[in-house]
Amino acid sequence: MRVAIVGATGAVGHELMQVLERSALHIDELLLYASPRSAGSQLTFRGQALTVQVTPEGPIPADVILASAGGSVSKALAHRWIEGGGVVIDNSSAFRYDAGVPLVVPEVNGEAALTHQGIIANPNCTTAIAVVAVAPIHREYGVRRMIVSTYQATSGAGQKGMDELLEQTHRVLHGQEATHKEFAHPIPFNVIPHIDAFQDNGYTKEEMKVVWETHKIIGDPSIRVSCTAVRIPTLRTHSEAITLELERPATPDEIRALLAQAAGVEVRDDPEARLYPMPLTASGKYDVEVGRIRESLVFDGGIDLFVSGDQLLKGAALNAVQIAEYLQTHGALRSAQRA
Amino acid sequence: MRVAIVGATGAVGHELMQVLERSALHIDELLLYASPRSAGSQLTFRGQALTVQVTPEGPIPADVILASAGGSVSKALAHRWIEGGGVVIDNSSAFRYDAGVPLVVPEVNGEAALTHQGIIANPNCTTAIAVVAVAPIHREYGVRRMIVSTYQATSGAGQKGMDELLEQTHRVLHGQEATHKEFAHPIPFNVIPHIDAFQDNGYTKEEMKVVWETHKIIGDPSIRVSCTAVRIPTLRTHSEAITLELERPATPDEIRALLAQAAGVEVRDDPEARLYPMPLTASGKYDVEVGRIRESLVFDGGIDLFVSGDQLLKGAALNAVQIAEYLQTHGALRSAQRA
Repeated sequence: MRVAIVGATGAVGHELMQVLERSALHIDELLLYASPRSAGSQLTFRGQALTVQVTPEGPIPADVILASAGGSVSKALAHRWIEGGGVVIDNSSAFRYDAGVPLVVPEVNGEAALTHQGIIANPNCTTAIAVVAVAPIHREYGVRRMIVSTYQATSGAGQKGMDELLEQTHRVLHGQEATHKEFAHPIPFNVIPHIDAFQDNGYTKEEMKVVWETHKIIGDPSIRVSCTAVRIPTLRTHSEAITLELERPATPDEIRALLAQAAGVEVRDDPEARLYPMPLTASGKYDVEVGRIRESLVFDGGIDLFVSGDQLLKGAALNAVQIAEYLQTHGALRSAQRA
Repeated sequence: MRVAIVGATGAVGHELMQVLERSALHIDELLLYASPRSAGSQLTFRGQALTVQVTPEGPIPADVILASAGGSVSKALAHRWIEGGGVVIDNSSAFRYDAGVPLVVPEVNGEAALTHQGIIANPNCTTAIAVVAVAPIHREYGVRRMIVSTYQATSGAGQKGMDELLEQTHRVLHGQEATHKEFAHPIPFNVIPHIDAFQDNGYTKEEMKVVWETHKIIGDPSIRVSCTAVRIPTLRTHSEAITLELERPATPDEIRALLAQAAGVEVRDDPEARLYPMPLTASGKYDVEVGRIRESLVFDGGIDLFVSGDQLLKGAALNAVQIAEYLQTHGALRSAQRA
């Protein structure tokens, strides 16, 4: 099949190429697209140099189009790209809340992908990382309330986010004052409780994405979800402290046993051996690390846990490729017309 | 009066001297003590050079003894120090849970200090910062459940913690691998959900301190409290995401108005102007910044908020001096015998 990446030169584009190299997709040809500024550059895929082309404003001649070029580009062009017959797996928030667009984490609701009408949405990174751990618990014990506090890496703002952290940290270590451009405030040695735009209810859009997308992916809008989304000075991998109230009481041992069987999860939970989820160990890893599993002190029979997941992988590139793999496995890929 | 600092050369000792310079205490003489390794060095107080002496194993000839030399030193010697008639305000966890020792945040339970029998405990930094914001809410609306996730600075591990963050970050920026000594894992660009020792229930002692000390300071053990305590790569000031279930429903505006009147709190809550609590703005500040005040999405009539407080100040040195000031104001200082 032919696979296209739109936004090939960005941080997620970079990860997409790495993940595709190791994926089970039968890729005959890879097409790379980016903005006019980045077009013309060459990227290597499976030892072959490929030239990045300008993102088309019409059909893309590929069976799978992995889009990671921002919401406004996807919104304007995704429907044109699929006129050739391919399916767009879109990493932006452009279509996530459209009723006709499945929002998919394959381990949780892969079957939803099969109902697509040309566009499938890839979830917000924070949500994707949380639901691989929480969905199996919901299925067995019923999640009533879910309280999430995040520790989000600068790569959530792309390569530029990581660059700003490194450059500005260097400045601070050399006695200079930090400046900021990608973030609302200087990020070195700081904590910024502000990711994406503030909504009327005082929550940020990032926080509300966790609410809306958890409901849509798990398929149960009765779960009461809240989130505090916080940017911290790390490079990649988001961590999340999660408190769960459950309908049926669970013990930490039961949850550990359950998650040990869950796809996409690595239980890393041996505090005495200093084993718990951390960006240091979760970065570059496909599975989401889950640990610090313990009895809730505020909800009888509830559970507290801590997760670390590479948001460029499970939170973006990996999940998108896994959706494509799911479609391939289930014979649900449309065949795009050659250009 | 005569004031003594035990542990004068540490990070909290340094802050104590700064806070004492600006305090309302009538200080006639300041005595400085540290371990034999640091004794002999000179520190400046109000323009005067003072020589650090070795911490006595007997009575300290001071009315107020501000101790910040670690739990084992306090445990072994505090009862000896007060034999001269002074009162120890102890920054370690050695006496916090003793029934006869008041645990005091002056804005919350200052009157408890007046019942002391020679020793007053200064709370854990995370708790001190949380309760200045939460106690006024509890008084008006009744807190039923309190869920805390922390973003804790390396200075929680003292000057050595900050030094390790700076040195190891420098290494990473120069392509070297980070090592670790003060923390369980390398701290640069990492997140470590492990502060203090793990307890049998899977929580760390740091997390349980928030539970135990919130109960003791607020004086209501019926509040259900839980905490996830996380070390992040910042230098000073702890931040905390706090979710509150309330007995009587509150609106964000009501909480803002209430906290605007509360002692020790600065409401910093204008998201559109990018004003919210951050280490960058809270560091060096006496008041705890409180913001991101919004309606809970999981508890009807509940409240979410975010706090940043300088844990070397309100979480340690400042609170200790404020306890001494409270005793002075209420004529409750014992008069120590001159050596």
